[in-house]
Amino acid sequence: MENGVISHRGKVLTTDTMNPNVKKVEYAVRGPIVQRAVQIEKELKAGIKKPFSEVIKANIGDAHAMGQRPITFLRQVLALCSYPELLKDNKFPEDAKNRARRILQSCGGGSIGAYSASQGIECVRQDVARYIERRDGGIPSDPDNIYLTTGASDGIVTMLKLLVSGEGRGRTAVMISIPQYPLYSAALADLGAVQISYYLDEERCWSLDVRELQRALNAARGHCQPRALCIINPGNPTGQVQSRQCIEDVIRFAAEEHLFLMADEVYQDNVYAEGCEFHSFKKVLFEMGPEYYKTVELASFHSTSKCYMGECGFRGGYMEVINLDPDVKVQLTKLVSVRLCPPVPGQALLDLVVNPPQPDEPSYATFIKERTAVLTALAEKAKLTEQILNTVPGITCNPVQGAMYSFPRITLPERAIAEAKEKGQAPDMFYCMKLLEETGICLVPGSGFGQREGTFHFRMTILPPMDKLKVVLAKVKEFHQGFTQQYS
Amino acid sequence: MENGVISHRGKVLTTDTMNPNVKKVEYAVRGPIVQRAVQIEKELKAGIKKPFSEVIKANIGDAHAMGQRPITFLRQVLALCSYPELLKDNKFPEDAKNRARRILQSCGGGSIGAYSASQGIECVRQDVARYIERRDGGIPSDPDNIYLTTGASDGIVTMLKLLVSGEGRGRTAVMISIPQYPLYSAALADLGAVQISYYLDEERCWSLDVRELQRALNAARGHCQPRALCIINPGNPTGQVQSRQCIEDVIRFAAEEHLFLMADEVYQDNVYAEGCEFHSFKKVLFEMGPEYYKTVELASFHSTSKCYMGECGFRGGYMEVINLDPDVKVQLTKLVSVRLCPPVPGQALLDLVVNPPQPDEPSYATFIKERTAVLTALAEKAKLTEQILNTVPGITCNPVQGAMYSFPRITLPERAIAEAKEKGQAPDMFYCMKLLEETGICLVPGSGFGQREGTFHFRMTILPPMDKLKVVLAKVKEFHQGFTQQYS
Ligand SMILES: Cc1ncc(COP(=O)(O)O)c(C=O)c1O
Ligand SMILES: Cc1ncc(COP(=O)(O)O)c(C=O)c1O
Repeated sequence: MENGVISHRGKVLTTDTMNPNVKKVEYAVRGPIVQRAVQIEKELKAGIKKPFSEVIKANIGDAHAMGQRPITFLRQVLALCSYPELLKDNKFPEDAKNRARRILQSCGGGSIGAYSASQGIECVRQDVARYIERRDGGIPSDPDNIYLTTGASDGIVTMLKLLVSGEGRGRTAVMISIPQYPLYSAALADLGAVQISYYLDEERCWSLDVRELQRALNAARGHCQPRALCIINPGNPTGQVQSRQCIEDVIRFAAEEHLFLMADEVYQDNVYAEGCEFHSFKKVLFEMGPEYYKTVELASFHSTSKCYMGECGFRGGYMEVINLDPDVKVQLTKLVSVRLCPPVPGQALLDLVVNPPQPDEPSYATFIKERTAVLTALAEKAKLTEQILNTVPGITCNPVQGAMYSFPRITLPERAIAEAKEKGQAPDMFYCMKLLEETGICLVPGSGFGQREGTFHFRMTILPPMDKLKVVLAKVKEFHQGFTQQYS
Repeated sequence: MENGVISHRGKVLTTDTMNPNVKKVEYAVRGPIVQRAVQIEKELKAGIKKPFSEVIKANIGDAHAMGQRPITFLRQVLALCSYPELLKDNKFPEDAKNRARRILQSCGGGSIGAYSASQGIECVRQDVARYIERRDGGIPSDPDNIYLTTGASDGIVTMLKLLVSGEGRGRTAVMISIPQYPLYSAALADLGAVQISYYLDEERCWSLDVRELQRALNAARGHCQPRALCIINPGNPTGQVQSRQCIEDVIRFAAEEHLFLMADEVYQDNVYAEGCEFHSFKKVLFEMGPEYYKTVELASFHSTSKCYMGECGFRGGYMEVINLDPDVKVQLTKLVSVRLCPPVPGQALLDLVVNPPQPDEPSYATFIKERTAVLTALAEKAKLTEQILNTVPGITCNPVQGAMYSFPRITLPERAIAEAKEKGQAPDMFYCMKLLEETGICLVPGSGFGQREGTFHFRMTILPPMDKLKVVLAKVKEFHQGFTQQYS
């Protein structure tokens, strides 16, 4: 080889030669604004003076990072599973020990360090199925239809991957809501699938209207092959809780239009507004009778990351598949086996979530107290957020019925919009960046989730502790007023 | 909608409409033979009589499932991280507590239940970089080049995904060894990339000859776009440890042929044979001088699943990237952010692996004792396996220099081959199925990893405890003799 030949050629892997689908992926929840927030934190640590003393990350649904304490029972069992020597310790309650023993017995060699079955530990899948049955008033659930996952993200991406095929006009298209949780658009871009956007109705508290589904589908037909419909309920980023009627309409629509349903129900315990209730797609489907429950294909997703536990770091979750073609199920099982198994500590954690302490067990009282405290506080913070934001001229906020976010609409002065455009930034990104620089509050601009052309929003979690949340809301209010003045 | 319209249409998602790439994926390590093994276990439990009393799974590198005990220090720290109340407990050594405190301080809200940065917890990445520096005799490692992963599997799949682009003759092709760990062929099938197979030299203890790399590459050129070369060292399923010279040759080849190098080094502590030593690709690359280390693009992978710890269930791992284009790095960081983060308990575990107890710390003696015991036992079992298998007429086994597997070649009678073909089975699958049914021993047929046309092998882990391993080897011997007789 001649000297220097190598370096002249440049890199093998460049943004020109790399996977073009990956280039199209966008993920705002951890995008540029969050990177800047991390940088600012480092600057603060290095002693650089700012008009604030800390960065408050209200950009992501990460309860523990916002100071929520873990549920004692869950962590006791996890400690016992990690270091079974502690089973001899009489400081741990018997029910925690029993759960740990049961989980360990189902692990290879009695260790959570063994790979599990790729679909997940059998006894955990059984517990999940029983949980679903209780939740849905006795409608049967088969452990063979349960797949444990690495967070809900993993299950959603895997299901989408199975669904995507065809080229050109035959390419699989998937309907997703706008605004959406950007995992969906990112996964579709990565898979080279077509995204069909249907809009949630901001005027009606972000509800879903079947006529809008029909409009979106009609507009897409002919260009692509629509095959699946994704719903997030309770909603992220929009915080709505769908009515039973709406879910029934969606299921009927999916049946008529021959679409595979994907129901993202990771916020199923996070319902705060009076008159709202969580209805699982599975339950409504079964209540609609055999014409539906024997035919409509459904995958629903749950996670250990949200609800009252907020255990995001463990990457636990499951999906339940209904009416999945048995041959496709074989393919699904094969596909998940390539990555060996979901993290076993996350599987153990999920087991406790679906099989919590019972009234006659020693940990029950503390467990209920801790869980109630979290959910009550979230309900209060949901209400307060809506109230305070709606006192700000130029901000309108729908009720936060559920989930962990408010998604208020903001009116931006023309001059601010123009200045953002000059900078090549979305106007609400421009707004959020300025908010971050001036107050240390990190929000995600609405453009990261999608919104109707010409409207602007931001997403803010309701997770900061009450006293901090009040500060955040006051600062946002002050900032918005100053911003409006500055650019008017 | 007319009644019954729905059911006439059939399913949305069938094996005809699903992702065709997923259909092509194969993953033998958890394939039909393992499913049959699980079934047999259930039959045994149900009281069905078999010529054996238990199934022995020597099909997968899962140390804890085979009875290996977890390393005390690792599990103590994990228990402390899971339930920080235990930090008050004086039963835990100070060094374990210090590690737990350091990890918790780097977690959002001081909890392993918070999402981490998508690239991994910063202090863990720092510890990984320092580990690599120590391992490689001081060659610098930058924490910014470290990405923590969900097992090595995740890192490998992510890197391959970045690399794949183009259509037809421009489609990315990746060179992988035959025999190979089937994650590679599965990921390439899933991504629709072209696989270029290069054969390891069974006659020379499964070594890698650059002339064979050249042959394979020449044969592929013109049909596809070769862009990456994957090496597994120490080898799975073949158990070889590559010489320093060989690694140098491979790096030179990659430089000349303009290939991105992927070095799978998950067995880096698993070297048993005298005269063999682990050399990391990174170290050899840097020792070859700036002409190489300033240009050759390399990603190397490590895992918590193998070595002395065998903590597969935690799904911990990292990759280090060298000379990755900065813009591609931005894309990589964005891509991994879509799945939020690797499991935090796995990250914590990895931190302990790369930052184990030091000589002046209280846990040091026990840690060294436990680690040595595991590695010494593995070395003994590697030797015994080779020795006993080579006493069987019709079985030839290369030395198990490293990793966790033997991959002996088996001679099968013509009549057995014919009968297998009639059944539509690979001959070594036929052999392994029969072995399973008759003895309860679960091995993976060589066809699952790839092998030279007309040769047959099986892969057997050396992980069962010594007494059980002896039984397994004796049974395999007896079975092989009976099988040969039956079909001769
Ligand atoms: C609607 C929705 N789905 C899925 C996820 C993924 O969560 P995880 O992968 O942590 O379970 C999130 C996380 O915020 C979410 O909001
Ligand atoms: C060579 C090789 N690479 C990667 C892996 C993946 O391991 P994990 O994802 O558990 O880190 C394995 C597992 O057996 C392996 O043998």
